[in-house]
Amino acid sequence: MRRNSNSSINLVSAGEEGTLEYRIQHVMEDHDSKVISAWHDIPLYVLDEFSNKPTGLLNFVCEIPRCSRKKFEIATKEPGNPIKQDEKKGVLREFKKGDIFFNYGCFPRTWEDPEHSHPDTGCAGDNDPLDVCEIGMRIVPTGDVRQVKVLGVLAMIDDGETDWKVIAIDADDRWAPELNDVEDVERLLPGVVDSIREWFRTYKIPDGKPPNVFGLGERCMPRTYAMKVINECYLAWKTLVSNASLGGEVPRNLSVSKLTDLMAELEPDHVLSASDHLEATSDGEAEDYPASLIA
Amino acid sequence: MRRNSNSSINLVSAGEEGTLEYRIQHVMEDHDSKVISAWHDIPLYVLDEFSNKPTGLLNFVCEIPRCSRKKFEIATKEPGNPIKQDEKKGVLREFKKGDIFFNYGCFPRTWEDPEHSHPDTGCAGDNDPLDVCEIGMRIVPTGDVRQVKVLGVLAMIDDGETDWKVIAIDADDRWAPELNDVEDVERLLPGVVDSIREWFRTYKIPDGKPPNVFGLGERCMPRTYAMKVINECYLAWKTLVSNASLGGEVPRNLSVSKLTDLMAELEPDHVLSASDHLEATSDGEAEDYPASLIA
Repeated sequence: MRRNSNSSINLVSAGEEGTLEYRIQHVMEDHDSKVISAWHDIPLYVLDEFSNKPTGLLNFVCEIPRCSRKKFEIATKEPGNPIKQDEKKGVLREFKKGDIFFNYGCFPRTWEDPEHSHPDTGCAGDNDPLDVCEIGMRIVPTGDVRQVKVLGVLAMIDDGETDWKVIAIDADDRWAPELNDVEDVERLLPGVVDSIREWFRTYKIPDGKPPNVFGLGERCMPRTYAMKVINECYLAWKTLVSNASLGGEVPRNLSVSKLTDLMAELEPDHVLSASDHLEATSDGEAEDYPASLIA
Repeated sequence: MRRNSNSSINLVSAGEEGTLEYRIQHVMEDHDSKVISAWHDIPLYVLDEFSNKPTGLLNFVCEIPRCSRKKFEIATKEPGNPIKQDEKKGVLREFKKGDIFFNYGCFPRTWEDPEHSHPDTGCAGDNDPLDVCEIGMRIVPTGDVRQVKVLGVLAMIDDGETDWKVIAIDADDRWAPELNDVEDVERLLPGVVDSIREWFRTYKIPDGKPPNVFGLGERCMPRTYAMKVINECYLAWKTLVSNASLGGEVPRNLSVSKLTDLMAELEPDHVLSASDHLEATSDGEAEDYPASLIA
């Protein structure tokens, strides 16, 4: 058992490290180690613990730590959604390109809807939680949940699917106070965004695949745009979970938790409404938070 | 021509990038672009511009930027000591392991004496300037000179030669104020020192070579020890250059500048004395600066 920096969540491992059976499961510290899903049961938007208002920060689940290459990821199709090392034909996958130089993971409670073609990329989502590149100095262990500040987003297109890469920094990193948007990263840390883009362009080439491409003229879009993308993926997730809770079928073998008391406790202001999705996407305005959280 | 962050030095490139002929040469901005050697003509210890007293910082010459893999290095055997990409049998060398995750380069005016067996490793030096791993967030371009704070040192042994890896951080990095010794790195950024050690242990394995080993029980030695190692390498360099200036033969085809007015101007308090070497190494005390700089 390992304690996460987020005090109410612990991490439990099962199976032997380096095998197909190895899993890292999130459990609640104060609920008899009740299993929680890193995808469904961790809030996306960090609320102030007293006022319950949004702090501007988001929770990030680290899957692949900086300076490592094993492709750990949330198992979206397994009950409880533990983290496991990705496999292909029984072989554990690694980045053949080399170690990744940023902490890589995803935002909980987001989903890139494979049935929804994004107007700015012309491609549908990749059926996964939204990916995050956390550029801070710390090496964040697999499974750890950290609060991050969103800085921008790259529109990666992988084999015809939209696979957004949000760029963020750990809120506790000593660079964080000066980094509020992608232009701050370009000014103070020139080359970092370019290096991330080059990483994703080239990382599958050693597997014999073509380079990935990017939408939106390869531009790293600013924070407001990134927050809009995150919100869209949050609402897509809400619709997914809402449909499942109402007894609908869950598509593509995904494992989606039913809404529980535990979840309600974690995010008390959370209101599920399928219509939120339509409102937010038809609005066209970049908003930092869904209306249900600002109320 | 590219301006270095150190305002009095410019960088001039010659030859085509990606070829065996490509060179990056340091020149003085205010001396009709007079060629200077990044190895011999840049001061090691940063002095306060008014008091001329040591600031505690050292100059670092970046050879290989963070997030890259081309093995650029100071050409110690070429006149003017430009930076070039290392080659083997006519092929430009890269790290096959992948991109390096820290800025990698050396300290000017240092030399790991191949005739001197270090008492703590039992192995002689590798005939190169002292290597530096700069762990800050910035991507430092090849050839740039930056002021760094020394944090510790690893005693790498490569094929029977001592090849110290000093760990340092850019003085301007936002983490620098809190990092004063290796124990601060371990406490605030756990895993970073281990990742550097693993990098050097394994980086030649894809070339078919065995893993490197480390002296001193693999320990990352603290700042005081690192400053002592740096001082030893500084004094070894002084002896090398002093002998050459007195008409002695320069060993191993190294290209060593004669002492010039330019050099005297850069480091006015610099006193060359072969006996300094003996005094400092027989002393056994860890001192931050050679006596000639503190006077």
